[in-house]
Amino acid sequence: MDLLSIKDPFFLKDMNNEELEQLSQEIRKFLIEKLAATGGHIGPNLGVVELSIALHKEFNSPQDKILWDVGHQSYVHKILTGRACDFDTLRKYKGLCGFPKRNESEHDVWETGHSSTSLSAAMGMAIARDLKKEKSFILPVIGDGALTGGMALEALNHIGSAKKDMIVILNDNEMSIAPNVGALHSILGRLRTAGKYNWVKDELEYLLKKIPAVGGKVAATAERIKDSLKYLLVSGIFFEELGFTYLGPVDGHNYEELFENIRYAKKTQGPVLLHVITKKGKGYNPAESDTVGTWHGTGPYKIETGAFVKPVNEPPAWSKLVSETVRRLAREDERIVAITPAMPVGSKLEGFASEFPERMYDVGIAEQHAATTAAGLATQNMKPFLAIYSTFLQRAYDQVVHDICRMNLNVFIGIDRAGLVGADGETHQGVFDIAFLRHLPNMVLMMPKDENEGQHMVNTAMKYDGGPIAMRFPRGNGLGVNMDEELKQIPIGSWEVLKEGTDAVILTFGTTIPMALKAAAILEKQDYSVKVVNARFIKPMDESMLNSLFDSKLPILTIEEAILQGGFGSAVLEYANNYRSYGSIIERMGIPDEFIEHGNVDRLLEDIGLTVEGTVQRVIKITPKKQKRA
Amino acid sequence: MDLLSIKDPFFLKDMNNEELEQLSQEIRKFLIEKLAATGGHIGPNLGVVELSIALHKEFNSPQDKILWDVGHQSYVHKILTGRACDFDTLRKYKGLCGFPKRNESEHDVWETGHSSTSLSAAMGMAIARDLKKEKSFILPVIGDGALTGGMALEALNHIGSAKKDMIVILNDNEMSIAPNVGALHSILGRLRTAGKYNWVKDELEYLLKKIPAVGGKVAATAERIKDSLKYLLVSGIFFEELGFTYLGPVDGHNYEELFENIRYAKKTQGPVLLHVITKKGKGYNPAESDTVGTWHGTGPYKIETGAFVKPVNEPPAWSKLVSETVRRLAREDERIVAITPAMPVGSKLEGFASEFPERMYDVGIAEQHAATTAAGLATQNMKPFLAIYSTFLQRAYDQVVHDICRMNLNVFIGIDRAGLVGADGETHQGVFDIAFLRHLPNMVLMMPKDENEGQHMVNTAMKYDGGPIAMRFPRGNGLGVNMDEELKQIPIGSWEVLKEGTDAVILTFGTTIPMALKAAAILEKQDYSVKVVNARFIKPMDESMLNSLFDSKLPILTIEEAILQGGFGSAVLEYANNYRSYGSIIERMGIPDEFIEHGNVDRLLEDIGLTVEGTVQRVIKITPKKQKRA
Repeated sequence: MDLLSIKDPFFLKDMNNEELEQLSQEIRKFLIEKLAATGGHIGPNLGVVELSIALHKEFNSPQDKILWDVGHQSYVHKILTGRACDFDTLRKYKGLCGFPKRNESEHDVWETGHSSTSLSAAMGMAIARDLKKEKSFILPVIGDGALTGGMALEALNHIGSAKKDMIVILNDNEMSIAPNVGALHSILGRLRTAGKYNWVKDELEYLLKKIPAVGGKVAATAERIKDSLKYLLVSGIFFEELGFTYLGPVDGHNYEELFENIRYAKKTQGPVLLHVITKKGKGYNPAESDTVGTWHGTGPYKIETGAFVKPVNEPPAWSKLVSETVRRLAREDERIVAITPAMPVGSKLEGFASEFPERMYDVGIAEQHAATTAAGLATQNMKPFLAIYSTFLQRAYDQVVHDICRMNLNVFIGIDRAGLVGADGETHQGVFDIAFLRHLPNMVLMMPKDENEGQHMVNTAMKYDGGPIAMRFPRGNGLGVNMDEELKQIPIGSWEVLKEGTDAVILTFGTTIPMALKAAAILEKQDYSVKVVNARFIKPMDESMLNSLFDSKLPILTIEEAILQGGFGSAVLEYANNYRSYGSIIERMGIPDEFIEHGNVDRLLEDIGLTVEGTVQRVIKITPKKQKRA
Repeated sequence: MDLLSIKDPFFLKDMNNEELEQLSQEIRKFLIEKLAATGGHIGPNLGVVELSIALHKEFNSPQDKILWDVGHQSYVHKILTGRACDFDTLRKYKGLCGFPKRNESEHDVWETGHSSTSLSAAMGMAIARDLKKEKSFILPVIGDGALTGGMALEALNHIGSAKKDMIVILNDNEMSIAPNVGALHSILGRLRTAGKYNWVKDELEYLLKKIPAVGGKVAATAERIKDSLKYLLVSGIFFEELGFTYLGPVDGHNYEELFENIRYAKKTQGPVLLHVITKKGKGYNPAESDTVGTWHGTGPYKIETGAFVKPVNEPPAWSKLVSETVRRLAREDERIVAITPAMPVGSKLEGFASEFPERMYDVGIAEQHAATTAAGLATQNMKPFLAIYSTFLQRAYDQVVHDICRMNLNVFIGIDRAGLVGADGETHQGVFDIAFLRHLPNMVLMMPKDENEGQHMVNTAMKYDGGPIAMRFPRGNGLGVNMDEELKQIPIGSWEVLKEGTDAVILTFGTTIPMALKAAAILEKQDYSVKVVNARFIKPMDESMLNSLFDSKLPILTIEEAILQGGFGSAVLEYANNYRSYGSIIERMGIPDEFIEHGNVDRLLEDIGLTVEGTVQRVIKITPKKQKRA
């Protein structure tokens, strides 16, 4: 059928399984072709084609509420709810979002991006439904990886006891983004291999009768065993213990099985956990045979070969630079241990893991546990490296406050994907970390101007023993600068003058330094002499340099690819305000008080005015002498 | 024995059970007497007398590491490690901390205050121990309440699969602070009532032989049942499924049972969960018979009667004012639902719960789940009231960002215990909330000057439908002002002039307003005319009032009982900086860049300079006209 003609999922009601199979193949073909051009989360979506179709056939969205946990597996849902025509713009500026979005469709009832939120949201929706005395099915679809996130476990514990009607679809593909870890993973593995216990139940009565009645203590035991057997032979005892009716495991690519179990779940009172086994990348060979997570989310690729379309000879990725420098240092310092919350691939820790398997811990999607495990290591004089994305560090804020900063422990936090991340959009932008870390006592926060300084900063961090130290670095690749062979230490709190100037000063760090230098060069031609400072330490700042800047009375422009409120520019304002003799202008450039949607980073920066041209204009605006000349 | 003479726990090694019983009674008497004068966490500590003694007798602290989760149950541990002599200063300024403190004793290997951190820390310590090839026991002691915290569940999942040697002591007293909720609680309940399964194991072989061998399908079933039985009859299957060896339940007040099981645990490889049943308040009748949590932590009391020593005719507690106002509004608005993460008593939600049992959810120690459940409710046009302490809201930072603010959902967050909290100390001070909420798009943040304004603000919040809105309010009681009968709405972002003045302006809100008014009165006598503004909206600020203040060129003093970095004063600086025509002085008073320890709040404020006298001096300092006159 013509996928572009789909308006809503109602057309599915009349289709038989054969027609659904046909539709599945068409959707797979569509996804493989479209994503070859745009990139996107191909693996997760190919895995849920039948599941998404089955849910939309058996339930009535949006009255029945489907909540896609994490949400990168919602492409099929988007096709079925009338958005196939938008796939050319997937994850592009002003285009189709890669995650559920309430303003895109009434069928997107819950927005996601971060994992493990769907069960709590479903609980809220279930409470609302029951208070309003409405009837509807609430259907969180959560992966086995997301299930290990603490808030999902908190929710399981609560939902199981509160006995709300809800069908939790456990989409078990044996991977999160990387292969899964943890005891829950083993439990699911046992359930998968045990096959279906249903027929066992039929035989149960017969067997129970065969257990002989014996006297005394043993009789009581036998009775207890009979009770236990009933209890045990309902498989999925872990979930049953938590108060769920467990159904499954179901082959998530088999319509007959899916419908049978979904229909049974619909008739079951209280919370149900429907365990669906799917295969990431199903139907596309390169993705289906992926075992490490390469095909979880990709850029454009060639359909026939599965080769990724990538610029050749790229400078090293930031993640790799950081992890490989830690690896190099780990050869000399046995105390270094790397910790990642389920991002060994994204954080490029494969090399570290293969060289130091005993000193690398992937703790699963469990940011809080990751941060406090690092703190525990630090109490024992180890040197933990916590590799974590800026946006996911948000989930460990309390652990950074309470367990790391408060005890002033030597933890190195490598804050990956700091700043705008582009295609993943507003749930993933790393724009709050300065504002949520800068106010924490004992915290050192820095950002390097290029990958060479980056390697020295990593070295500085791993040798620092004054407490917590964090380095933020952007998504993507370095600048391609020459790398020093020998690693240096950068004095904590020291800034660096990159270009002298006598009319104005730009204070900035990280990704915005090249922009500042370009702007300064342009301004030079217009007869403005602009000093550019690499303010690589966001906390503590270089107070001696600040003092001399303030003494010089030059206007100052601060630039940060981060939220303005409480950010680096505010730190400069605070310091200037305490420094009584200062009376010049400070202008701050950064991200305004709003959430930034997905799109090409350069395009987004243009919207915000974080451009070379914007910088030039701002400098001219705050430089009175030159305004007169002009 | 003389408890004051104890230097370290080594003396326990030679004591027999009878002597230990005697010691237990002496410690109980000591605690009951000391805490009658100082107040403190009497209930939890009376519950762990035998457990603490048994751990210190069987293990060698600090080589073996005892981690007290939450930590308010560490008093007996403190006595046994040489700190009995400090109990007169318990929770007082510069006195003994109510939680483990690494600078107090080498036996305090992990500092706590917030719950559910001990397992992750223990994991870090176990990794360190194994990498260093050291031998030691690692012993997190965690309550059944703390076990429902997401990060503890994340840790269980990881520890169970990583198979690290560790003995998790589950201190099960069937309560957290309030009675426990959740499916885990039910699981523990079943384990408790099931009694000891140990003897069942002895009979197992006999019974297994009695299951007849039959042909075909049924035979396979029988085999599977035999396997399953072995598996099942090890009780604590929930924990066994997670990869732990489960031992218990053990009577936590019976030395013989404790030692038998601890010794067995010591010989067991891999992670062990030792389930110890204790009774909160054990040995002191008023505390032992408490079923709601009144005796969890208390002020001073009369030993004989258990009556609390409290000032008579106190103004209403802030928590009660807020919860009762929400209750009043809930009578008219059916959409209002209250959510608390395990603090129904602390948040004074008992009245709401009894009137609206269907609309009140205690979700357990699960702040993340609480926040996102509220978000889920809001998507369904309900009006959730999330009652949460400032310090615990830290744990839901990502949920506030990602689920509440990003989707701009109508959630009212009642931020209790904002500002300094006193005796609980640095883990509990509510000083970061302004800094971690102010930079979030869509957030409205306010604080009332007194309980009358407080009730109007609650009304404002519950009627607001522009997105998330939070009201911070302090620990303790209101000012005793007259209460309006009718509830009003306060225009969002509107400030209020409390006193006119022509020489300087104080901008402040909440608890520091009375201080500012007193200072202004004193200054008036010294011929300084000081304007005092109730800056009740921290975000958004009253820009029209700010503009006119800036136009007046008066020096401005901002005061906040919160961390200065990124706080309210910084918001004023940011605004002033954008407001080009402004050139006057802004001075900021607040909490400096350090963690504030426990002690009387007034005493702590004095250290920081947040006093009437400090305010007077700061105003004089920034008011040039008067400086010349003086």
